[in-house]
Amino acid sequence: MIGESKWDLDTPALCVDLDKLERNIARMQAALARAGVASRPHAKTHKCAAIAKLQLAAGAVGICAAKVSEAEALFDHGVDRLTMTTSSVTPVKIRRAIALKKRNPLLIQAVDSASGARDLNDAARNAGIVADVVVDVAIGMRTGVPPGEAALALAQDVDRLPNLNLRGLISYDGAAQHIKGFDARRTETLRRFEPSVETFERMTKSGLNTEIFSCGGTGTYNIVSTVRGVTDVQVGSYIFMDAQYLEIGGEANDGRFDDFEVSLTVMATVLKSSFPGRLTTDAGAKALTTCEPRPSVVGEPGFAYDASSDEFGMIQYERANVKYNAGDRIEMIVPHCDPVVNLYDHMYATRRDRVEAAWTITARGCSQ
Amino acid sequence: MIGESKWDLDTPALCVDLDKLERNIARMQAALARAGVASRPHAKTHKCAAIAKLQLAAGAVGICAAKVSEAEALFDHGVDRLTMTTSSVTPVKIRRAIALKKRNPLLIQAVDSASGARDLNDAARNAGIVADVVVDVAIGMRTGVPPGEAALALAQDVDRLPNLNLRGLISYDGAAQHIKGFDARRTETLRRFEPSVETFERMTKSGLNTEIFSCGGTGTYNIVSTVRGVTDVQVGSYIFMDAQYLEIGGEANDGRFDDFEVSLTVMATVLKSSFPGRLTTDAGAKALTTCEPRPSVVGEPGFAYDASSDEFGMIQYERANVKYNAGDRIEMIVPHCDPVVNLYDHMYATRRDRVEAAWTITARGCSQ
Repeated sequence: MIGESKWDLDTPALCVDLDKLERNIARMQAALARAGVASRPHAKTHKCAAIAKLQLAAGAVGICAAKVSEAEALFDHGVDRLTMTTSSVTPVKIRRAIALKKRNPLLIQAVDSASGARDLNDAARNAGIVADVVVDVAIGMRTGVPPGEAALALAQDVDRLPNLNLRGLISYDGAAQHIKGFDARRTETLRRFEPSVETFERMTKSGLNTEIFSCGGTGTYNIVSTVRGVTDVQVGSYIFMDAQYLEIGGEANDGRFDDFEVSLTVMATVLKSSFPGRLTTDAGAKALTTCEPRPSVVGEPGFAYDASSDEFGMIQYERANVKYNAGDRIEMIVPHCDPVVNLYDHMYATRRDRVEAAWTITARGCSQ
Repeated sequence: MIGESKWDLDTPALCVDLDKLERNIARMQAALARAGVASRPHAKTHKCAAIAKLQLAAGAVGICAAKVSEAEALFDHGVDRLTMTTSSVTPVKIRRAIALKKRNPLLIQAVDSASGARDLNDAARNAGIVADVVVDVAIGMRTGVPPGEAALALAQDVDRLPNLNLRGLISYDGAAQHIKGFDARRTETLRRFEPSVETFERMTKSGLNTEIFSCGGTGTYNIVSTVRGVTDVQVGSYIFMDAQYLEIGGEANDGRFDDFEVSLTVMATVLKSSFPGRLTTDAGAKALTTCEPRPSVVGEPGFAYDASSDEFGMIQYERANVKYNAGDRIEMIVPHCDPVVNLYDHMYATRRDRVEAAWTITARGCSQ
């Protein structure tokens, strides 16, 4: 496919515009550097070793992985500075995490309970290694140890356990990323983040290692990066952007979050154009997911795209800017980049619409 | 994993209960045989050569595929009696379809326009073959040629074209499958199907080959199978069942469609149980999709499962039948089987909860 126009690819096809991707990476790197913090981009978004390597080459201090299987796949394809942000709570997961740590000394992993820390310590001792650990401090009620006393006690536990090496803390607020309106998002993010910051300060005062204080994401990169103590931000979607992020609004433009460019699109084919006010495409739920908001067709703001059918996309419109025939290609901005990328085995990396590479989505399907 | 309990598998894990799967296949086969029609199960549901072979062994006359890439993958793994239900409208798709037909003489494929028929004929002639074709007759406005005059004209075109061999017609009504309440579903299905039946009769009267008149799905298998002329039903989800189908109601039980058993589940792990009234699991949108209705936890009717987070499931509850701890496994009925299966590389085939096989999901991700 190399050299081919993306408009000639068989579809559905996942495409990433390299000029935009590179500008997004450079822009985020520069913005975080200005704030005096690093980036530790989250690979759950792209699951792609090729993109992780671009992020590391641009200055990222590490790459986050959500699951052990994701970290395994990325390490097997040359990405070693990995931080696993989900704690391992079963024997099989701890076994996999320690086996990976044995192969990859740079692996850092989260713990969020005393029993989890003890189990990890035991497995590390049995493997004859020391595991690097960050304490996952909860914001909300999803994962993590509650901030304050409980988190401090866990950090002290980790610090005392001989086969664990405390590196600091992580504190990611998933719910804050998509709060609409920059001012509301900033106020709410900082309010919810405050107990984590106090925990960081108490850990530091207690003499515990806090060399890592990692938090935030694409929606809050320019909010948490201003907080004293924060070392790096776990940004993910900024490389691609999607319909969900566009609508949260940015600091400069409250109507549209345009700090980063939309680099990720899905190319589809019109299968049917003969029904009035309707187009059928070959990209349904298996190509775009059923996430909200709906996919948007590039160049056709009046199109309502329904991807709820598994195999077909249904477009309803009153007017179109172009006359469509069966066989014509259309391009969509995806609802939410992470689960869409996870549907494809590879993505086409294009520049000025020509395919430069077909990148394997290294950790596709790695939900374990 | 062979011999292991499904309750010990690493998670998220997609599992299919073999006793239930086998009963579902036998039950559908018997019901259609009683009505005097055959089954032509749709592989878009399972994408799995192992299951297609079970269906063929039970007496299915063929296996449907939604996309060329799906048909290619299944043929490469030993499934040859394939019917491609989506018409090819681009040169690259026609090239792939004809290349597959050259390798697999049993392939039948849909056409739904005069130009599509001509292009397919030209490609078949250039390849030195004759392509077997069914005319796709539209119900609603998705794909297909409108019933009546237009469909008849297309069938005559196909019949005249020297490198196409008309085999009959298909007429699938996607929207009818999930109409709630059996009586409403029957009435509406038959009303919408009537123009296709008239088209079938006109084709037959005109001397055109109608040896295949294929239609229907799991929701309408006992409705369309009673219609004169119908040769086979394109049933898919009956093998697995899911939350969407359970709620449509059946002929015998209007409250729950229980003609078939739920054989497909996702196993997940509780990651966090210490927040009041909440459990966090390791199965979010990348393990269960965001389709509606929500996943249901087996044995816990009071649990509200939210899979909208990419990596985590969030359960809210007032009371639980069991006390849950981090590390405990839970089992979920999926919202909609087709797109969930498409997330996994393999499924564990279990009997009395022991793993008998790990089946490759042969055509996973084959959306082209």
